[in-house]
Amino acid sequence: MKRIVLVRHGESQWNKENRFTGWTNVDLSEKGIEEAHNAGKLLKEAEIRFQAAYTSYLKRAIKTLDIVLDELDEDWIPVQKTWRLNEKHYGNLQGLNKKETAEKYGDEQVHLWRRGYDIAPAPVPEESEYNPANDIRYAAVPDCFLPRTESLKDAIARVLPYWECEIFPRLKTCSNIIVAAHGNSLRGIVKHLKGISDTDIAGLNIPTAVPYVFEFDDNLQFIRDYYLGDAAEIRRKQEAVAKQGTAK
Amino acid sequence: MKRIVLVRHGESQWNKENRFTGWTNVDLSEKGIEEAHNAGKLLKEAEIRFQAAYTSYLKRAIKTLDIVLDELDEDWIPVQKTWRLNEKHYGNLQGLNKKETAEKYGDEQVHLWRRGYDIAPAPVPEESEYNPANDIRYAAVPDCFLPRTESLKDAIARVLPYWECEIFPRLKTCSNIIVAAHGNSLRGIVKHLKGISDTDIAGLNIPTAVPYVFEFDDNLQFIRDYYLGDAAEIRRKQEAVAKQGTAK
Repeated sequence: MKRIVLVRHGESQWNKENRFTGWTNVDLSEKGIEEAHNAGKLLKEAEIRFQAAYTSYLKRAIKTLDIVLDELDEDWIPVQKTWRLNEKHYGNLQGLNKKETAEKYGDEQVHLWRRGYDIAPAPVPEESEYNPANDIRYAAVPDCFLPRTESLKDAIARVLPYWECEIFPRLKTCSNIIVAAHGNSLRGIVKHLKGISDTDIAGLNIPTAVPYVFEFDDNLQFIRDYYLGDAAEIRRKQEAVAKQGTAK
Repeated sequence: MKRIVLVRHGESQWNKENRFTGWTNVDLSEKGIEEAHNAGKLLKEAEIRFQAAYTSYLKRAIKTLDIVLDELDEDWIPVQKTWRLNEKHYGNLQGLNKKETAEKYGDEQVHLWRRGYDIAPAPVPEESEYNPANDIRYAAVPDCFLPRTESLKDAIARVLPYWECEIFPRLKTCSNIIVAAHGNSLRGIVKHLKGISDTDIAGLNIPTAVPYVFEFDDNLQFIRDYYLGDAAEIRRKQEAVAKQGTAK
């Protein structure tokens, strides 16, 4: 039996301040660090050992992974970082407060920007600090790949080639793989694995820093998925994520 | 101009307790964490940006690197980990207190074990927890490569192929590379780069968590080397390292 474990990063400074983050490189909050330690402890209890790890180019996911691997005493395993696992780019909403944006544009519009499958906010201006083309991190990425905004559909479209070419094939030689990433890049992977429809995927709320296990048989056929940890706590976290971005 | 920056890990729990560590996977102390942050700040002040990073399989070096890259906001760059950058394996001395060992065997014998170029302590028994063949970390390494003890000569002999094949050639495509490792694996690199003799290398004391910069011209010819930071503080650190392992 083989496993891929998805972990959404712990709370970041801007989750706490309820701001649209996207590709902004915000650090974990104290609570986020604690959440990541807990995720590591849950994996340790479950006796899951990893042979390979993947994460995004963003500090909050990288640190979540580092902390999890440290808890598992597996910080020596190879870690691959890729911009393709980054959060959805939130265009010109990046940096804005979600509640204030909801007050200004209405809950409905903000919900569409956050969850509409093929709806993207307005792009950032070319000269913006939020334009990845101005960030040395992405200097090796062809400009035509670098988003100035993204819908969930766009974000999923750039996650899946990496999933297909790098992460999933690695299961041939590894028994357990961990992917530490973001709400929307992980949505893309879960949508793909479970065949969730374009309309239903918006309703999927992945809790922060809870190990989400996907099991596969030796032919790499998907068997089942489940979260590690306390069910009530997971539900509470999912509801907290769902509630962000409303005026109340 | 191109640079390779060597960083010896910050103080570990066992440095603090003055015990022979070698391949034992000991964590950084609070002071070691602070030292690593300072190393990152010095590199930031010097405006050195890295394109590639290397470290060992041991937590104290990995965490030092993670902290330095975090300070530089460069935690997204590729990090390669290798057992070949591990500390010298201290054989059956691993775990023992250096001062007590000196009281038992004499300063001279301990100095030979610590600094004698081709003198290795007795090997660990095959069944020992300190035998890397019993550690899942090294499961992919051919058993004949895995030491049960090492002299400085042995340690250097397994560092240099990696330096030749992986680290140094990377300078062709990178302008700055960072290597976070250990007192003796870094001694091997410095010995090679500066042509230090087998007898003189024992006298080279690399201070903990001070960026040690090697500059090369565009043909990768070595130009000069220097430490970043306060000279008096560096000397103090070098003397502290030299003094370990004496009875007084």
